[in-house]
Amino acid sequence: MATQGQVITCKDLFLMSKAAVAWEANKPLSIEDVQVAPPQAGEVRVKILFTALCHTDAYTWSGKDPEGLFPCILGHEAAGIVESVGEGVTEVQPGDHVIPCYQAECRECKFCKSGKTNLCGKVRGATGVGVMMNDRKSRFSINGKPIYHFMGTSTFSQYTVVHDVSVAKIDPQAPLEKVCLLGCGVPTGLGAVWNTAKVEAGSIVAIFGLGTVGLAVAEGAKTAGASRVIGIDIDSKKFDVAKNFGVTEFVNPKDHDKPIQQVIVDLTDGGVDYSFECIGNVSVMRSALECCHKGWGTSVIVGVAASGQEISTRPFQLVTGRVWKGTAFGGFKSRSQVPWLVEKYMKKEIKVDEYITHNLTLNEINKAFDLMHEGTCLRCVLKVDV
Amino acid sequence: MATQGQVITCKDLFLMSKAAVAWEANKPLSIEDVQVAPPQAGEVRVKILFTALCHTDAYTWSGKDPEGLFPCILGHEAAGIVESVGEGVTEVQPGDHVIPCYQAECRECKFCKSGKTNLCGKVRGATGVGVMMNDRKSRFSINGKPIYHFMGTSTFSQYTVVHDVSVAKIDPQAPLEKVCLLGCGVPTGLGAVWNTAKVEAGSIVAIFGLGTVGLAVAEGAKTAGASRVIGIDIDSKKFDVAKNFGVTEFVNPKDHDKPIQQVIVDLTDGGVDYSFECIGNVSVMRSALECCHKGWGTSVIVGVAASGQEISTRPFQLVTGRVWKGTAFGGFKSRSQVPWLVEKYMKKEIKVDEYITHNLTLNEINKAFDLMHEGTCLRCVLKVDV
Repeated sequence: MATQGQVITCKDLFLMSKAAVAWEANKPLSIEDVQVAPPQAGEVRVKILFTALCHTDAYTWSGKDPEGLFPCILGHEAAGIVESVGEGVTEVQPGDHVIPCYQAECRECKFCKSGKTNLCGKVRGATGVGVMMNDRKSRFSINGKPIYHFMGTSTFSQYTVVHDVSVAKIDPQAPLEKVCLLGCGVPTGLGAVWNTAKVEAGSIVAIFGLGTVGLAVAEGAKTAGASRVIGIDIDSKKFDVAKNFGVTEFVNPKDHDKPIQQVIVDLTDGGVDYSFECIGNVSVMRSALECCHKGWGTSVIVGVAASGQEISTRPFQLVTGRVWKGTAFGGFKSRSQVPWLVEKYMKKEIKVDEYITHNLTLNEINKAFDLMHEGTCLRCVLKVDV
Repeated sequence: MATQGQVITCKDLFLMSKAAVAWEANKPLSIEDVQVAPPQAGEVRVKILFTALCHTDAYTWSGKDPEGLFPCILGHEAAGIVESVGEGVTEVQPGDHVIPCYQAECRECKFCKSGKTNLCGKVRGATGVGVMMNDRKSRFSINGKPIYHFMGTSTFSQYTVVHDVSVAKIDPQAPLEKVCLLGCGVPTGLGAVWNTAKVEAGSIVAIFGLGTVGLAVAEGAKTAGASRVIGIDIDSKKFDVAKNFGVTEFVNPKDHDKPIQQVIVDLTDGGVDYSFECIGNVSVMRSALECCHKGWGTSVIVGVAASGQEISTRPFQLVTGRVWKGTAFGGFKSRSQVPWLVEKYMKKEIKVDEYITHNLTLNEINKAFDLMHEGTCLRCVLKVDV
């Protein structure tokens, strides 16, 4: 391709090419012309076509994430096409359709080889501080000033550079404007059920928080054959939508005087078999654990709590058989399993379209962040290449 | 037998027959003549020959247990012989050698049928408040004044009455002065490894607290093929003994300035595969979780914390793959598996004798409680029938 090995300025190559830059915490993102350096060894430059927004973007943008670095380019739920690859990259080539993966999979590190986790240690030391591993520098700059990467993905940009261990090659027939969602929220929910909790048929499941991740948990639970899927949310308007994803009962904590864990225990003759916290609220995490059935109930933390916050409970809760776990990207191995999830979508075995409530363009990204905080928005997909 | 169906006064039947009564919290136990009523339907009267002391006895005796009821007869780690049985009892008969089980197993309740837990719900509502299920009264009295049962066992007595679901029939060849230990501490440690954590060969294990339960965890880990068994205790004198039970390395937190979880993480290239808290200290429970390896490390709470205390950690610890669990009686189904543990002991596949550091008589029970708080005492076995 013509752009291989060159420094590309998005605007020079594509009409209205751009990136949304977060210059500082809590200030509106700014659409800028950003220089994107060519991919170095083991790196892949991707043309992002569609990106969605996720709460982790909003969290870092808010300034509450102590590891957040500014200026940066946020975004981690997207799909695109490989533009060029650096030296030694063999698993993808220009033209491949890909989903960037904030959770890498190198297949070589202690984690990848363990067979016990989807976490990968290879590039985390670099992606955690907004740079690429090779030279510990950013590939983004404006007038020579570096702009930090985010989560190893930075998808709020027409072009981004990712490590080769952080990109999943997918079926070129898959609609990128849909499958971009398979970069974060939907797999996180499905995998929390299938991989982390391993919900069995007949189980009673409670889901705290009915956003995209919570609904994906519901879908996963339904697929797994759960007999009851109890959705818990302080916004009763969410129930109608939630039904379509498999939620069979709805509880609004505001309708009850008792602690919500007691309400659920009473509803279920002793508690649920599995619970999922999909909000990121440490007090709800406690409720989610404590509404589990004595002897075997398992609670999975899916939501990301604000920095510094802690979960707590009486140890008796665990001594009497409850299990407290968590999940990251639903336990899916990214490069190996995202393509499989795309296939499942293509075969209509999992929902994706149904989570997309809004479509905007990258220019409208600040409006998209506003939408995220409204109850009616699940996922807003931005067309990046406009 | 001559005593079937009769009210027996221990002293009337056995020379110096007696029970150690806890009249109130924190006051020395008092050796008293106690009337033991005949077993009602579904009950078994057992002649206790040997009992050991366990920290749960000391905890309730101390008055810190808000559910502790006085006056009561403590004791839950013992062995004896069935003296008589109530109506409908079919699985044991007079003369059978038995181990009372504070963890019942009815094989009929939701818990027993679940296949997921060793907890049993059948008699807990009664044993939790110091009475028998049939008439919600005690079988113990002194001059007509009822004395509460404890944990459904009350083994600090020559005769006790237990529910039939709370007694395990064992090999009559087994030495009762040894296998009494299979009523609590040793199975709890072994089972925490075998049933709750399911430690695999090659694993790195950390054990916090090297008392009887911690040493049983070490033995279980060694049997399971753990590659390293790290013992952590603030009393360095315990290491020599601990070696005999399978501990391969010793760490005294007092020798380090860093938090103990960091010391263990540094020692193990990222953390242990499994950790066990065998003290009952909520702050150590946190250390035990946080010294686990990211991605898969599992921490099991074995120790019993004081009432009202809470465990806490950052949810990120779980989201990045650590698992927090607990165990009660090591996950063993009592009536089914205590006999199996006795067989393993008889075949010399598990240690029991090695935990017995002191032998006294029931008359000396207060001395035995004092010994428990000394570092050199693991288990003190009391001869009851003296």
